[in-house]
Amino acid sequence: MPKPVFISFDGLDGTGKSTQCRLLVDWLATQKIPATTCTDPGGTAIGQELRRIVLFGREHRICTTTEAMLFMASRAQLVEEIIRPALDRGEVVVSDRFTLANVVYQGHAGGLRPEDLWQVGKFVADGLEPDLTLVFDAPLEVTLARRNREADRMEERDLEYQRRVQTGFRYEAGRRPEKHRIIDATPDTETVQRHVRREVTRLLISYGWPITTET
Amino acid sequence: MPKPVFISFDGLDGTGKSTQCRLLVDWLATQKIPATTCTDPGGTAIGQELRRIVLFGREHRICTTTEAMLFMASRAQLVEEIIRPALDRGEVVVSDRFTLANVVYQGHAGGLRPEDLWQVGKFVADGLEPDLTLVFDAPLEVTLARRNREADRMEERDLEYQRRVQTGFRYEAGRRPEKHRIIDATPDTETVQRHVRREVTRLLISYGWPITTET
Repeated sequence: MPKPVFISFDGLDGTGKSTQCRLLVDWLATQKIPATTCTDPGGTAIGQELRRIVLFGREHRICTTTEAMLFMASRAQLVEEIIRPALDRGEVVVSDRFTLANVVYQGHAGGLRPEDLWQVGKFVADGLEPDLTLVFDAPLEVTLARRNREADRMEERDLEYQRRVQTGFRYEAGRRPEKHRIIDATPDTETVQRHVRREVTRLLISYGWPITTET
Repeated sequence: MPKPVFISFDGLDGTGKSTQCRLLVDWLATQKIPATTCTDPGGTAIGQELRRIVLFGREHRICTTTEAMLFMASRAQLVEEIIRPALDRGEVVVSDRFTLANVVYQGHAGGLRPEDLWQVGKFVADGLEPDLTLVFDAPLEVTLARRNREADRMEERDLEYQRRVQTGFRYEAGRRPEKHRIIDATPDTETVQRHVRREVTRLLISYGWPITTET
């Protein structure tokens, strides 16, 4: 009996993270693996409203701690409504971002203490944490050039902030290597997806899932 | 040189807490004591929006942890924008509710662990806590009868929930008696206000504030 698996995608904006997430979910479908995917922040009605406020709500002053708490509020609902029930059904869950994003954006880059954010994050997720987090990384010149939509509140911050984000992701991935894999997002989409599938396949097999075509 | 003081009002709905808060602030003005007052949740632009969502936003499912985090988000902004600057100016701050409300409503009454909420509360308030909390208490028959407006999401819950709220406030006040005073809200407004002023006067004098007319 395969065990439920919780995978998160995280890392810099402009690394193609969300595209890779969708491609992975499509591939899981071809493998007949029951999967649920979600976006954090978002994924629920209240989560969508909070996502709008925290990422695009330029009508309000929002301090870094408030920002972090709005992400946490959205995540609490996402865990309760979507992620926990899917895992209880025995599925594979793939989330586009999770607690690590707050630890890095509001912690390493924003000046709050990373350990405080891990602690609040653990509380709101009711102790749940990803079995594996794929951390998408690429040189900042690549990620900044790739952005093809209006920048949100995190993205429009300066290069120094983006550098702290990158360093934060690398630091956290290195601190717990058994739960994180850094994925080099510089190559073309297909090459990156091959790396993603390789990491996920290894994990799924160890959790007892049958994979018919390895890549 | 008088020291800044942070006072919060908390307790059951329908105890006249907010009226008592306003009356105290009026009295502080007659004493020429510089005071700032605020309402938690609320008090800032984002706080007002979150207050609407969490207290009256019946369009969304909101789980208890999300509810707690929305209050925390609002409080983080309130501390940063209003409370901390007022204390830095050397003023007396009077807040209508603070962290204790989350500990009681989402903790004791809502099923989350009170100590988790104290911990998150400390983080979002950047370590700031009230020097004194006045906890308004009265028999539930009194408080339920006194409500004269549309019930919000907390208030419309059942009597059993309200009982757990009452027990929670009493427990927390008893646990740290040096920082809490239970105010019996059963008598008429003037009598209750006399009790409030007596407690606040004692505190203000100990912090070096000149009180010209004690009540």
